[in-house]
Amino acid sequence: MVTIAVDMMGSDLGPEELANGVVNYLHINPEVEFICFGDESRLIYLKGLDRVKIVNTTQVVPMETDVLGFLRLKDSSMYKAIQAVKSGEAQGIVTAGSTGGFLTGSTLLLKNIPGVQRAGFCSPFPTIVKNKPVLILDIGASNQNTAQELVGFAKLGSIYSKLFFDVKNPKVQLLCNGVEEGKGLEETKGAYKILKEMHSDEFDFEGNIEPRDVLNGDCDVVVTTGYPGNVFLKSTEGAAQMMGALMKKAFKKNLWTKIGYLFAKKGFDELKETMDYKKTGGAILLGINGVAVKTHGNSNAYFFYYSLDLVFRMVKSGIVQKIEESFKDEGKK
Amino acid sequence: MVTIAVDMMGSDLGPEELANGVVNYLHINPEVEFICFGDESRLIYLKGLDRVKIVNTTQVVPMETDVLGFLRLKDSSMYKAIQAVKSGEAQGIVTAGSTGGFLTGSTLLLKNIPGVQRAGFCSPFPTIVKNKPVLILDIGASNQNTAQELVGFAKLGSIYSKLFFDVKNPKVQLLCNGVEEGKGLEETKGAYKILKEMHSDEFDFEGNIEPRDVLNGDCDVVVTTGYPGNVFLKSTEGAAQMMGALMKKAFKKNLWTKIGYLFAKKGFDELKETMDYKKTGGAILLGINGVAVKTHGNSNAYFFYYSLDLVFRMVKSGIVQKIEESFKDEGKK
Repeated sequence: MVTIAVDMMGSDLGPEELANGVVNYLHINPEVEFICFGDESRLIYLKGLDRVKIVNTTQVVPMETDVLGFLRLKDSSMYKAIQAVKSGEAQGIVTAGSTGGFLTGSTLLLKNIPGVQRAGFCSPFPTIVKNKPVLILDIGASNQNTAQELVGFAKLGSIYSKLFFDVKNPKVQLLCNGVEEGKGLEETKGAYKILKEMHSDEFDFEGNIEPRDVLNGDCDVVVTTGYPGNVFLKSTEGAAQMMGALMKKAFKKNLWTKIGYLFAKKGFDELKETMDYKKTGGAILLGINGVAVKTHGNSNAYFFYYSLDLVFRMVKSGIVQKIEESFKDEGKK
Repeated sequence: MVTIAVDMMGSDLGPEELANGVVNYLHINPEVEFICFGDESRLIYLKGLDRVKIVNTTQVVPMETDVLGFLRLKDSSMYKAIQAVKSGEAQGIVTAGSTGGFLTGSTLLLKNIPGVQRAGFCSPFPTIVKNKPVLILDIGASNQNTAQELVGFAKLGSIYSKLFFDVKNPKVQLLCNGVEEGKGLEETKGAYKILKEMHSDEFDFEGNIEPRDVLNGDCDVVVTTGYPGNVFLKSTEGAAQMMGALMKKAFKKNLWTKIGYLFAKKGFDELKETMDYKKTGGAILLGINGVAVKTHGNSNAYFFYYSLDLVFRMVKSGIVQKIEESFKDEGKK
């Protein structure tokens, strides 16, 4: 049995919406149980359900919070949910609430896995090649990172990639504004040097990659400092949205184009399926002692279902133990 | 008459391809003349043409070059073309060659307009709203910028936006990983403060914008430090390419979807037109004493035609003089 701690508050759509996701996921997965933290009066859908424990909380972590602000909210749904993982009651946590609060809380309470200098948010992106996602980290846990932290991201990402994308030797590249060695930010140059001489047997380092090539399906793990990573995430999202809107407009132009849509629908359903970011489940905080997933603030029940599944699969895979194993000598170097 | 200095070398497709662009543009615009710098033996298409002067050069600036490397290549097509603007023989220059070399050469030889602390590469992007492009700068002239330089970009971008997008009070926003004040890199925070208190009558500053919202047609000028700006440019390009490839695949899935394409073609032609980045003409180096445009390294004659037109229109608009006027008090502050 896998136990997941769920922060039911902090979603734009309200705890009722997340509760629907929990109920749906319970139905299909008999191996999971939940501890749900939140305002009891709004969790009536969950009452009396098998494999669901409700813990009433009275506070909610606001979107903008700092360390001290977070630490004052000891009866918040997020604090208590993280605490449940720390105490071992649960093996994973998912929240739709404040990203900053979640980062602070996870780092302070759960702490990084020994040897991991910095945890990073990562997310798989679809590529042009069917069923060949690319993992990118960090996409926003930090603004800046050291070269050594980037090397850590390469290892973390490779472990994830091996477990979930079924890749033997993940191809790792550094996000950069040019493919030549010596391009980019100082930390990228530093990481390039270290990775080149590392000859890891966990992954193949293959130099820099430009943002325009990330989605062409050639690379497994793209490593970046948090700020450009976040820009990559959001630019890609924006461009995809724009193309989606233009496509809709193209099909709605006149009667003929509308008929065209009817004929072409099957092809475009597949495109929609590929681009359906909701199935990714959210951003994974990798390197923390425990499985930690931050789902979109406006996650609906459908999206949240996949977030819960992501946490479940990560716990089952033993990824935290595998990272521990892989980083156990890092501190001693 | 507008005189444009053209660096004929440095294009991936060879000087012959660029020569085709020159010939085509000559035909439609009687108000333009060219000084073309390059290997004479490869510019035979241009020989004997009215309004074209060929200057033979023996060197080419390589893709990767530093300041000293550039200064040694005094008989290169790029050096001489820039020199022609400096001497006043030409009012604008266009190159498909090394971006680094062009940046170095323009900054050293032409120099920034007095009061401009840093020149920036900018480019208009299409948005969801028809005929409402958004200008973004800097997209890669620098890796990092100071807050004051970002404020300069806001002014430079607004001047361009007014002249070419027909906007009265351009809406200016700072690219950032969050809309709230206090988010983002130090220089972004600094620029936010200055811009907020500035109350310029040249533009309206409206806070931060997230990369995902840049293309929604709501903003006129987006200001960013060069590195994230470059990531934005290339991520957007990559995502658009990916969507384009998936669309093609969708229409080619089976006989029905192919028929669907025939019906929907008109709508999708419009989409293609909107996304045709070739018509943008290239990246504009704004803030330099002279009109300076860097076109794609793989520009074909079609693309290059638009690059030449961009230089022509910029010279005609008197943008350099307008920037001089606007920045003339900057140095005295």
